[in-house]
Amino acid sequence: MKALVFSKKRIKLKKIPIPKPKRNEALIKVIKAGICNTDLEILKGYMNFEGVLGHEFVGIVVESEEKKWIGKRVVGEINIGCGICDYCLKDKINHCPSRKVLGILNKNGVFSEYVTLPLSNLHVVPDKISDRAAVFTEPLAAALRILEQIKLSRKDKVLILGDGKLGLLIAQVIKRTGVNVYCIGKHKKKLKILEEKGIKTLLAGEGIAKKFDIVIEATGNREGFEMGLNYTKPEGKIILKSTYSGNINTDISAVVINEFHIIGSRCGPFDKALKWLEKDLIDVESLIDGEYSLDEWKKAFSEARKSENLKILFAISQ
Amino acid sequence: MKALVFSKKRIKLKKIPIPKPKRNEALIKVIKAGICNTDLEILKGYMNFEGVLGHEFVGIVVESEEKKWIGKRVVGEINIGCGICDYCLKDKINHCPSRKVLGILNKNGVFSEYVTLPLSNLHVVPDKISDRAAVFTEPLAAALRILEQIKLSRKDKVLILGDGKLGLLIAQVIKRTGVNVYCIGKHKKKLKILEEKGIKTLLAGEGIAKKFDIVIEATGNREGFEMGLNYTKPEGKIILKSTYSGNINTDISAVVINEFHIIGSRCGPFDKALKWLEKDLIDVESLIDGEYSLDEWKKAFSEARKSENLKILFAISQ
Repeated sequence: MKALVFSKKRIKLKKIPIPKPKRNEALIKVIKAGICNTDLEILKGYMNFEGVLGHEFVGIVVESEEKKWIGKRVVGEINIGCGICDYCLKDKINHCPSRKVLGILNKNGVFSEYVTLPLSNLHVVPDKISDRAAVFTEPLAAALRILEQIKLSRKDKVLILGDGKLGLLIAQVIKRTGVNVYCIGKHKKKLKILEEKGIKTLLAGEGIAKKFDIVIEATGNREGFEMGLNYTKPEGKIILKSTYSGNINTDISAVVINEFHIIGSRCGPFDKALKWLEKDLIDVESLIDGEYSLDEWKKAFSEARKSENLKILFAISQ
Repeated sequence: MKALVFSKKRIKLKKIPIPKPKRNEALIKVIKAGICNTDLEILKGYMNFEGVLGHEFVGIVVESEEKKWIGKRVVGEINIGCGICDYCLKDKINHCPSRKVLGILNKNGVFSEYVTLPLSNLHVVPDKISDRAAVFTEPLAAALRILEQIKLSRKDKVLILGDGKLGLLIAQVIKRTGVNVYCIGKHKKKLKILEEKGIKTLLAGEGIAKKFDIVIEATGNREGFEMGLNYTKPEGKIILKSTYSGNINTDISAVVINEFHIIGSRCGPFDKALKWLEKDLIDVESLIDGEYSLDEWKKAFSEARKSENLKILFAISQ
C-alpha cells in the first residue's frame, strides 16, 4: 500500500506492506485524513516520531475478528493503552505511560491506504456526517475536552488565542455554551468565519486593554504562552492546547503573583464530538482549504504550512 | 529612624524620617522582622523595588486615630489595595492592580524602626504567640493559602520541592491535614527538622521513581519548575510558590500532554495563621538560625544567603 513515511527528517511516499491487525484490532481502509498542526510540528522534531504520519481520519473497517464491524464507517481514538496499568484500568488510556499514539508515538498513522487500530478505539460515524466532516472528530473532541475540565459560567469572558483550525473549533464550541467569547488571530479571512457566526474577533496587534476570566491558548507556537499571561485576570484560568517543538523562555513569577490556574488540555471525547457533528452544531466545512491525493503530498503539505490556510485533507480512497 | 534602604542596587543603613501615618493608618514600632527569600531576590532585581526592605514583622502600634489600637502588638498583611477597584470591592485586595506591597512594591518595608500600614491590614497577635513566632505569620499564611486553593484527599500523595523556610512550613501544614506528604531538599540538617515530625524526606539526587498527585514548588529557583513537571502524575496538580528574578526555559508541551494543573499561590489568611501559631500546630522555633540588630545587617544578610540556614531575624526594638 501507499504510505507517507517520515524518517531521518524526511517525508517519503513509499510502498509498504498492508499492516496485519492483531487480536481485537481492525484493519481500516482510510477514506480521508486531515493534516493537523501536530503533524507539521513532528516534521520539526516534535516527539521524535518516525513512521507513517497522520492521526485524523475516517475509514471503513475491512477486516476484524468481530464480523459486525466489517463495512462500518469509523473514526478512531488516537491513544492506545497497555490495558493493564492504573491509568488503563481507570479508563484514562490517554495517560497510560506506555501508550502508543496514532501517527505520533510508536504507532503508524493514517496518511496511508490502510491502518490498524484496536476495536475499542473505534466509533461508528452516523450516516448524517459527511466524510469531510468526520475527519474533524478528533480535533473537535480535543476542543470539547475543555468543557470536561472547567466549568464555564454565563458571567465568564473567554478569549481564544489563535485563529487556526483548533482555535476556530474551540471558539465555536465555547459560543455554543452561551458564554461570551472572543478570538484573537492574525488572519482577517479566518476571523471572518467566526464573525459570521456572531463570535467577536480581534486582530493581533490591535491592542487589548481588557483581561479575561479564561484564556485558551491555541496559537500552536511559543508566543501564545506569554500572551496568555498578559491577557488573563488575576486568579483566571489559562487553558493550554498547543503542543510544539521547542522551549518557552518566560518569567513564571507572573503565574504566582497573579495566582493563575494553568490547565493542560489534550484529547477529548469522540462520542460527544460525533453528536455535535451529527446535530450540525459546528461548521467544519468552512475550515477546509483543499483536498489532495497521497501522490500530491508535497502540494498538500505546502498548502497546510501556509498561514492563510486552515484544514488540508487527503482523499485516499472511495 | 534607622532603616535598611535598597537603592541603586545597594543596601545602606540610613537615618530617614519616621513615616507619618495617613488617615486610617497606624504607625507601628517594629519589634522583630524576618528575612524572606523574596528579599534576597529583590537584591537580584526582582520587582525592581527601591526603598526600605522587608515585609515579615511583628510590632506595637504607637500612633493611630483609632485609640483602641495604640499599644496593641500586631502583625500586618502586606498588600495595600486602592480600595475602589473591582478586586478591592470583592475583598481580593491581594490582586488590586494598583496595589502597593510592603517592602516589595511602592511601599517602604519593615527593616526599620517604624513602619506605617492601614489599620485594615493589621491583626492583633494573641499573647500566647512569642515575638519570634509572630514574625512567621506572613509566611505561614502563604503556606495556608494552598489549603484555600485545592482540596486535599486522604488518598493524595503530596511532594514538596525545597527544604527552605517556606518548604518546611508548607510540609508541616500539609502533614497536619493528615495527608501523605514528602519533602525533597538538598540539606540533611533541614530535612531532619521534618523527619523529627514524622514527615518523610528525600535528598535531592537520590532519584525518585514515583510520581505524585500534588507537587508544591517551593525551591525559590527556576530548577523547581522543571522538577515539578517531572514528579507530577498526569492530571496532577503543581502548586507554584516561588517568585524569583529571571526566566524559565522549558518545554511546556509536557503540561499539555500530561494535562497538568498548575496553580500559582501567593499570600494567605493571616487570621488562620495566627490561630495555627496560637494552637502551636506549627514549629517555627526550629526554623530560626540567628537574630541580629539592624546595625549588624551585613552579617544578617550573609547568614540569610547561606544555603544551610533557614530564617534570620532582625531584633529591632524592646
